[in-house]
Amino acid sequence: MSAIQQNLSTSMASPASSFIAHYSFENIKSTSISIPGKFKVAVKCVAAPREQVIYMSTYKTKVSRNENMAKLQAGYLFPEIARRKAAHMLKHPDAQVISLGIGDTTEPIPEVITSAMSKRSYGLSTVEGYSGYGAEQGEKQLRAAIAATYYADLGIEEGDIFVSDGAKSDISRLQVLFGSKVTISVQDPSYPAYVDSSVILGQTGQFQKDIEQFEKIEYMKCTPENGFFPDLSSVGRTDVIFFCSPNNPTGYAASRDQLTRLVQFAKENGSIIVYDSAYAMYVSDDSPRSIFEIPGAKEVALEVSSFSKYAGFTGVRLGWTAVPKELLYSDGFPVAKDFNRIVCTCFNGASNIAQGGGVACVSPEGIKAMHEVVGFYKENTGIIVDTFDSLGFKVYGGKNAPYVWVHFPGQSSWEVFSEILEKTDVVVTPGSGFGPGGEGFIRVSAFGHRENVLEACKRFKQLYK
Amino acid sequence: MSAIQQNLSTSMASPASSFIAHYSFENIKSTSISIPGKFKVAVKCVAAPREQVIYMSTYKTKVSRNENMAKLQAGYLFPEIARRKAAHMLKHPDAQVISLGIGDTTEPIPEVITSAMSKRSYGLSTVEGYSGYGAEQGEKQLRAAIAATYYADLGIEEGDIFVSDGAKSDISRLQVLFGSKVTISVQDPSYPAYVDSSVILGQTGQFQKDIEQFEKIEYMKCTPENGFFPDLSSVGRTDVIFFCSPNNPTGYAASRDQLTRLVQFAKENGSIIVYDSAYAMYVSDDSPRSIFEIPGAKEVALEVSSFSKYAGFTGVRLGWTAVPKELLYSDGFPVAKDFNRIVCTCFNGASNIAQGGGVACVSPEGIKAMHEVVGFYKENTGIIVDTFDSLGFKVYGGKNAPYVWVHFPGQSSWEVFSEILEKTDVVVTPGSGFGPGGEGFIRVSAFGHRENVLEACKRFKQLYK
Repeated sequence: MSAIQQNLSTSMASPASSFIAHYSFENIKSTSISIPGKFKVAVKCVAAPREQVIYMSTYKTKVSRNENMAKLQAGYLFPEIARRKAAHMLKHPDAQVISLGIGDTTEPIPEVITSAMSKRSYGLSTVEGYSGYGAEQGEKQLRAAIAATYYADLGIEEGDIFVSDGAKSDISRLQVLFGSKVTISVQDPSYPAYVDSSVILGQTGQFQKDIEQFEKIEYMKCTPENGFFPDLSSVGRTDVIFFCSPNNPTGYAASRDQLTRLVQFAKENGSIIVYDSAYAMYVSDDSPRSIFEIPGAKEVALEVSSFSKYAGFTGVRLGWTAVPKELLYSDGFPVAKDFNRIVCTCFNGASNIAQGGGVACVSPEGIKAMHEVVGFYKENTGIIVDTFDSLGFKVYGGKNAPYVWVHFPGQSSWEVFSEILEKTDVVVTPGSGFGPGGEGFIRVSAFGHRENVLEACKRFKQLYK
Repeated sequence: MSAIQQNLSTSMASPASSFIAHYSFENIKSTSISIPGKFKVAVKCVAAPREQVIYMSTYKTKVSRNENMAKLQAGYLFPEIARRKAAHMLKHPDAQVISLGIGDTTEPIPEVITSAMSKRSYGLSTVEGYSGYGAEQGEKQLRAAIAATYYADLGIEEGDIFVSDGAKSDISRLQVLFGSKVTISVQDPSYPAYVDSSVILGQTGQFQKDIEQFEKIEYMKCTPENGFFPDLSSVGRTDVIFFCSPNNPTGYAASRDQLTRLVQFAKENGSIIVYDSAYAMYVSDDSPRSIFEIPGAKEVALEVSSFSKYAGFTGVRLGWTAVPKELLYSDGFPVAKDFNRIVCTCFNGASNIAQGGGVACVSPEGIKAMHEVVGFYKENTGIIVDTFDSLGFKVYGGKNAPYVWVHFPGQSSWEVFSEILEKTDVVVTPGSGFGPGGEGFIRVSAFGHRENVLEACKRFKQLYK
């Protein structure tokens, strides 16, 4: 492979390499190089970081690049962290790197669940066990079981459940559903998929570098000062409110009273809440597990959830979205009916094998097993909280979520991230990756093998003693 | 469950019930009914088809319905057919209904593939076999194996392959990638996901009832008169050209010469071809299996494909899209780099279990097994072609595809569909569901158990003798 090809393929393979945003062919000497059977490229004859190699074939289409894609500021957060981790490992090949960065489960999936998937897989080789296209909305048995398990007595029924290949995919499908003309609010900090998908769909203006925010998005600050719940009196109206509780990354679960106020706020404004309850099973106190525990929520909210963090399904891919029949657009048209059309047109249902696993998840044995998995990670959380606590840091989250949110006042999150990686070989997540409100924080994930969590905490103690 | 609730849930559960598009509350007496603990609805006090029950809660949000969703004319085609099949079965509970409608595989998946998935599933319960989030682009081993199996010597490499949960999902992700400002062409008739996703993304104008086309979409007529390949001299320029070969529904595979002309046409216009090769393994003659067999195609095309119709993976969900590094927007930015960002932001990778199956698919044993599956369906195709041929119909397709395209000149496709269903209890697909160019045709799918295909053909012979 030639050096140029290598440059190209490395850059392409790196999901998070920065964009080649500013082309200026003036005053740059370029060389056109032809590779037989391949393509022609021009490379700048000046030293440039690898990511800034300019791709220039002799032929360009006349299709304009989607301007919304160009608005995105950097690679999606987690691939960017993976890239930095990989670079660190390349630099320090002997380092024993521990990842408490991306919230990725590490513990084996309980056998009651994998044996169901294994059986389902194998059954596909038999006439009676084979199944082709399923209902795009999910298998009836699973939809009914999810409704019964998580929404009993909350008025959410089988037909309101749309089974998905995970919350991230459904967030994008919801953005496609709403279209480019809606406005959105997000908690600041929050899971970056809300903002990034909003930018991609064209709901926002440009990124404003000075305040690190996109135009037209309402950032609802969630800080220690307001107890990580936004001051709704200062929040402007938007069509859609993304709200994640227990929150990723702060780990804070909103109380019943706070969620009641949120529902009231949405109702007054005629907004739709997209409630992300992917961490609901981590709630330890009496904070609601579902937005639908709040009276009236079905008229203003839908809920996205996932088996990823309950059963270690991050790689298996299975989640769901509950869209109540009562949720209506301004013209009275049911949101669920359009979402159904999106699911039928843009998706073909979750893998039947994963759905077989989902049914096992919500069986009595599966629920017990999932509680054990969740309990294990919650013990990890306690270890991490105690560690930073003992070192004198202000530590938030952890109680109702697998994330610990540690404050480094006055410091840059990325600097703290780099220092920790460099000095302890532990990967965490920089708070500012979740929005400007996360600056000065890092998120430490409790997803890890016990010995790794203990070892990481030992290293934190050495670094910050 | 009350009658009203039943009405609502039936209507909601039916993915294809027609839209409640025209609200007129004037001169309609309505009754507000309160269901304790549920919600309030108003129902029209006139007899109306069930789908036209008006949903009216006492509360509506102030969020406007996405106007693009309202442009869609009916439910997505295949759920609509499923609905009609269900209605027929309800009316004739003893009917032995045979479905040759939606192109859904029926034969068991070869054991070499399911045993790999079964093993992978069970391995997730072990420390060494567990895997969480994988690369959004797919597992390295699978990407490399797909590149080596389908694109050897075509210059498509591991890094160009993006593993997906199926072609339909990737078509929508591609539309999100391109955004609302591009224009598209489609073969007419064609797989309805291209047009419907274009409408949803806002690339089109309104539906023009007189010509059964959406404004701003270029419909490239493919009929017996032009040998099912469009007359490119009469096709206007668009940014994106969706092109499926072997074609769904006509079953026609474009020749090397025709595809060379298509690539040339795209190059002259600066267009991007989205080439759908989901049926490539059904090609019997020397028609290209990939657009990348055509010199220069990498500068103007990307290719969407799938394991669905090769290995019976319609329910397992696994496909891929190949995006060459050489494909550039007008500003020289690589399409692959933006698609990578879409995949990272809007998708979290295909199920790891399905990917384990994909690796087995492209192993030497897997390829052999897939050829047997494909060979079986091709025998079915021959039986269906011979049947309609012997009955004096003009029959197209079949040779290079699992679809047979039968002409009923002067008749309405939906009427033929209904007559066949009513009189033979066989479900086919009305050609007009694939675009106005499909009017007067029906598509008969070769996906079925042998005895069902034989029985269906026997019934066709009785009906049309």
